[in-house]
Amino acid sequence: MVVELISVGTEILLGNIVNTNAAYLSEKCASLGLQCFFQTTVGDNEERLSMVLRTALERSDIVILSGGLGPTADDLTKEVAAAVMGRELLMDERSRKRIQEFFDKRGLSITDNNWKQAMMPKGAIIIDNENGTAPGVIIEAEEKTVILLPGPPNELIPMFEQDIVPYISGKTQETIYSQTVKICGIGESKAESMIKDLLEKQSNPTIAPYAKTGEVHLRVTARAEDVKAAKKLCKPVVKELKSRFGAYIYSTEEDTTLEKAVVDLLIANDLTISTIESCTGGLLAGRLINVSGVSEVFKAGYVTYSNKAKRKLIGIKKNVLDKYGAVSEEVARDMAKGASVFSKSDVTVSVTGIAGPEGGSEEKPVGLVYIGCNVKGKITVQKLQLSGSRAKIRETAVAQALILLRKCVLEYYSEVTFGKAK
Amino acid sequence: MVVELISVGTEILLGNIVNTNAAYLSEKCASLGLQCFFQTTVGDNEERLSMVLRTALERSDIVILSGGLGPTADDLTKEVAAAVMGRELLMDERSRKRIQEFFDKRGLSITDNNWKQAMMPKGAIIIDNENGTAPGVIIEAEEKTVILLPGPPNELIPMFEQDIVPYISGKTQETIYSQTVKICGIGESKAESMIKDLLEKQSNPTIAPYAKTGEVHLRVTARAEDVKAAKKLCKPVVKELKSRFGAYIYSTEEDTTLEKAVVDLLIANDLTISTIESCTGGLLAGRLINVSGVSEVFKAGYVTYSNKAKRKLIGIKKNVLDKYGAVSEEVARDMAKGASVFSKSDVTVSVTGIAGPEGGSEEKPVGLVYIGCNVKGKITVQKLQLSGSRAKIRETAVAQALILLRKCVLEYYSEVTFGKAK
Repeated sequence: MVVELISVGTEILLGNIVNTNAAYLSEKCASLGLQCFFQTTVGDNEERLSMVLRTALERSDIVILSGGLGPTADDLTKEVAAAVMGRELLMDERSRKRIQEFFDKRGLSITDNNWKQAMMPKGAIIIDNENGTAPGVIIEAEEKTVILLPGPPNELIPMFEQDIVPYISGKTQETIYSQTVKICGIGESKAESMIKDLLEKQSNPTIAPYAKTGEVHLRVTARAEDVKAAKKLCKPVVKELKSRFGAYIYSTEEDTTLEKAVVDLLIANDLTISTIESCTGGLLAGRLINVSGVSEVFKAGYVTYSNKAKRKLIGIKKNVLDKYGAVSEEVARDMAKGASVFSKSDVTVSVTGIAGPEGGSEEKPVGLVYIGCNVKGKITVQKLQLSGSRAKIRETAVAQALILLRKCVLEYYSEVTFGKAK
Repeated sequence: MVVELISVGTEILLGNIVNTNAAYLSEKCASLGLQCFFQTTVGDNEERLSMVLRTALERSDIVILSGGLGPTADDLTKEVAAAVMGRELLMDERSRKRIQEFFDKRGLSITDNNWKQAMMPKGAIIIDNENGTAPGVIIEAEEKTVILLPGPPNELIPMFEQDIVPYISGKTQETIYSQTVKICGIGESKAESMIKDLLEKQSNPTIAPYAKTGEVHLRVTARAEDVKAAKKLCKPVVKELKSRFGAYIYSTEEDTTLEKAVVDLLIANDLTISTIESCTGGLLAGRLINVSGVSEVFKAGYVTYSNKAKRKLIGIKKNVLDKYGAVSEEVARDMAKGASVFSKSDVTVSVTGIAGPEGGSEEKPVGLVYIGCNVKGKITVQKLQLSGSRAKIRETAVAQALILLRKCVLEYYSEVTFGKAK
């Protein structure tokens, strides 16, 4: 089945917001086994929106529109969709009641235009909105389906997950099941080359590689008559990927981020951690603290951007700084060592580097980064030469620090080897 | 003039990447005074791309296509555009030479398919690519213009800034000049209500409000026969905005971010700074360290997520933590006080809060954040009740900490008052 996305909103056309909904919906639709050939953004304009919707209905089976379901006169997605599909709008009592409750609960008064959000195309399926006042709408006609979703991501995403995914799965009359194998520490092209044979001969399940900073996600998707059969199809492929990528796989769980995998590993081994950062300036600590529950293991974070702070906060010796410079293997090592003494943590990770755009030299160019990791006295230092903007270099350094941390803890506590893929 | 954007790439249709190019180009085109009614994303498919381009040319004056200029057989944007515009492709010697140089410089060997990137539509204007091998292309026909840009943002953005902006400005036969008034500490709707009269009666210059976390940017855009005349038109409007928003304006410079304005203010007043963070866990330090040159003033950052770290690193008393809890006005105050003692900084900023999703209570719900700011002993504590995801709450807390820091320093060192707009 072919799906097409229409994003409605002048704020997207003006570049006021980045259209993350389209990326989210695209990925979700792909994982549901739908093909998507076109995505369009159009403003809150009756004529142009009608035109775009009519075109989409000619060439696609399912059209998903997002945005323009608000209470103001500008918002006309539902009105246009109803008109194009030849449906009149009627007051939906359940939606009316829910909107009343939404406002009552928050102690807000309702303005008249809010009732517009309870007007629904005749015969439509109405989807409750748990996080706002605009319900979702599904309008079914012969072989074509139009789905309307609210624009705010915090309303659109839960609605799609809870109601639209099962609805579409029901329509396709087959079940789509996906599992993601999440890899860190191997580049995208290297990872792809390692499974070139699998990518070439694939049909069902399929393997789709997605690159993130420092990571590659391989999404395995199978279609079958039910979940059990689809899972069964995925199983040998996931097993094959596991045997090829081994310890480079940090998770096969949908919700597990790299930082969560690292924190889980620390918790499992009962290890406390502290960070000591120069060029990344707190972003590594910040990413670890993304994980709700990190308080069990996170002891302290030090941001020592200046040499003085490196000396004062964690006792880096002046002569070491003078001799080797702040961005050096020796200082990265001493930072990891010093932080463990000062914080009394089992594990410490240090980052020192030149994020640019200034501060580079022939000998030490912008992008040179040293990461130190100290697991109970066993210190590993990794040298990296990164490229890109200041922000990109810092983001990559943080990802690489998490990857090194994971590797060092695994190597310390188990017989894991990382040699194979490198 | 009407512009239309076409993003070419299967990776966008699959949700593999977020289409930030579209947002960038939209904003730039709006600031050039172009109207944009449609944006389309289509895959690397000859038939569908031709169809989309033909439709765009029917309804818009300028069509900007991004992506699909790479060297592989998949990449066919240039081939399709040439076919639709009825132009043959010819080898462009200058582009051929530049591609050769690009590879030579990097010590890479050229594969045959790279020469495809030097084939150009007859009569086209060719734009050098300083950051990659795919040149940009402008194809002009009666009253219609097609512009082809490489997909990677680090190639597209510099090319657009350097070559496409002057080209389009030339076409419009008038100059567009924009200046942005950047405001912090006032919400978007409040800011809009303060200039409702200006927004209603505007024609030339126009004022366009853009919301960011904790900030509102008002972009003033004027059209005139030359830059001087356009600047002259902007001047009284910017002056009026300055008089209405006063000290809430942190900059009118294009390149100045909030963190840069704050760091500049610290440098100007010769003030050193340290941060002490709980729920934001290093992100505030990380944002200050975005500013290249912050090393002049940034002394130390402490990440004290646990109570133990708060006690150990900056000497928060156990009885204070026990009596008031880690998320309290008293602890925020003591963190700002303790950090100044331990780091010997002139200014310290503390953040403590409940970012969720766990850890909230009736009395102290998720989103409760206290920010403390200590300027040479004068301590201000601000209480916030934020909403959204863990990530959103932390991002907002960081922005609010920068805003409070700026406010406290300004109030300490000058007669600035912030009463007016609140």
